[in-house]
Amino acid sequence: MAFSGVNGKGPIMRIIEKAGEMQQQADSWRREGKRIVFVPTMGYLHAGHLALMEAAHRHGNLVVISIFVNPTQFGPGEDYQSYPRDLERDLKMAEGVGVDAAFLPSVEEMYPAGFQTFVEATEVTRTLCGRSRPGHFRGVTTVVMMLLQIVKPHTMILGEKDFQQLITVRRMVQDLHVDVAVIGHPIIREADGLAMSSRNMYLDDGQRQGALRLNQSLKLAQAMVDSGERRAESIVEKVSGHIGGAPETQIDYVQVCHLETLRDVTTIDEPALLAMAVQVGRARLLDNCVLQPPT
Amino acid sequence: MAFSGVNGKGPIMRIIEKAGEMQQQADSWRREGKRIVFVPTMGYLHAGHLALMEAAHRHGNLVVISIFVNPTQFGPGEDYQSYPRDLERDLKMAEGVGVDAAFLPSVEEMYPAGFQTFVEATEVTRTLCGRSRPGHFRGVTTVVMMLLQIVKPHTMILGEKDFQQLITVRRMVQDLHVDVAVIGHPIIREADGLAMSSRNMYLDDGQRQGALRLNQSLKLAQAMVDSGERRAESIVEKVSGHIGGAPETQIDYVQVCHLETLRDVTTIDEPALLAMAVQVGRARLLDNCVLQPPT
Repeated sequence: MAFSGVNGKGPIMRIIEKAGEMQQQADSWRREGKRIVFVPTMGYLHAGHLALMEAAHRHGNLVVISIFVNPTQFGPGEDYQSYPRDLERDLKMAEGVGVDAAFLPSVEEMYPAGFQTFVEATEVTRTLCGRSRPGHFRGVTTVVMMLLQIVKPHTMILGEKDFQQLITVRRMVQDLHVDVAVIGHPIIREADGLAMSSRNMYLDDGQRQGALRLNQSLKLAQAMVDSGERRAESIVEKVSGHIGGAPETQIDYVQVCHLETLRDVTTIDEPALLAMAVQVGRARLLDNCVLQPPT
Repeated sequence: MAFSGVNGKGPIMRIIEKAGEMQQQADSWRREGKRIVFVPTMGYLHAGHLALMEAAHRHGNLVVISIFVNPTQFGPGEDYQSYPRDLERDLKMAEGVGVDAAFLPSVEEMYPAGFQTFVEATEVTRTLCGRSRPGHFRGVTTVVMMLLQIVKPHTMILGEKDFQQLITVRRMVQDLHVDVAVIGHPIIREADGLAMSSRNMYLDDGQRQGALRLNQSLKLAQAMVDSGERRAESIVEKVSGHIGGAPETQIDYVQVCHLETLRDVTTIDEPALLAMAVQVGRARLLDNCVLQPPT
């Protein structure tokens, strides 16, 4: 099936719903010597996703995206059912940035009858979001492994907003020798500094003001490090105070971690990750930055 | 590196020790339109392995084997350290049956520093050997997934002696959409009926007589089914009695199972798996057959 933009003027983007068809297409492109770049998404695309797709063109000849809201990475009581979806809008946006193919499987296509196999990274998933969302990263690594087997990309691009997801997928790819380069793309922000997320739509005006404190607190933290602060504890305290000072914010975690192992860091002697998850109204928001100690 | 048989007369078999080199070779073959057939082994090759390699030629243009004694599929106290190894002999045998490439990674090559990712099929592994060897199949699915990412075969051939291994790997491949056909190869037996196994070398003459009871009992069981017996319990009792009657045999399990789910079967209304594991001296021996009820 082919799809062509709002006025039928865009380049033609191929729509693929079956894993077998996607694999055949990937094999055919690979035999032609083409390089496939893959951007997996859960849809409800925003400028952050589009930036990844635009960047993808710089890494190969063919850009493939997937849109799949993966049930196994949502816990009970999380927003799987209500996760925002707007496929038609997504396809127009993807075609607008020159995506060559969109893989849109059904849940039944991805999870065959009798499904029972999981992929799990056991250490980097113990902290941060992995602690608050048991099973989440097992769902992520499982579905990403499936998608890599189906799309067969040379390169995959993931956003750095979900930094732990990026680290976890990288670890899986390295450990299982998956032959794909995993590239992280810097966080894209709204004009007011809020990290782009499909879940930002859940915020009302007042909550949005609270949500802005996440990005503000990252800047406060870097300023402290620039002024000579090395103690992770002091930074976490300052950041937590700033975020917690807004109404309707509920901190899940604020942590300073090693950039690869994600183990807690007590003294910032080398670049370290400052990561946070904060519930603001219905939206669970993530943000992070790499704290750079002056050299 | 190339290897050429005992007198340098055989065709040249390529020896590859690095995952990256194997992947580049596989990509290159695939771009040429070649079809890769893969036979994973733990080495100490016997006629059973060679039959798989010979069969492999019928499924593609290039036959690749791996020889890797995988530590993560051995439990504490099992025979990982003492598992028989004879690489030079293995390479001559493989080259003798026209294998095109042998992938011989080190443990360090397969399991990079910081390794922590596992692949696990959660249901078909709960019974039979999975019950007696906790963690075994997690090690199997993890290393097979790695090997599939490295060798990138179109087809993989596994022996049916390890029937649960075949079912587990098939389930993994289906669940994770790995683009490879998994083919089971019938059990190859010694002239006296003993199923070929690298572990048969552990048996002395007296133990070998006991070991023959496994294959004998499979025939007894099929004869019972031919005579109208449908109750799995009766068959298990008869088989267990025959095997247990020999000295130095210790039954781990004798079970009648569904051919795909491996769930216990009570009445044999359709073809069912009769599977057994028996410790004979130092050797833990497996055997099985599909019981066919008369139609």
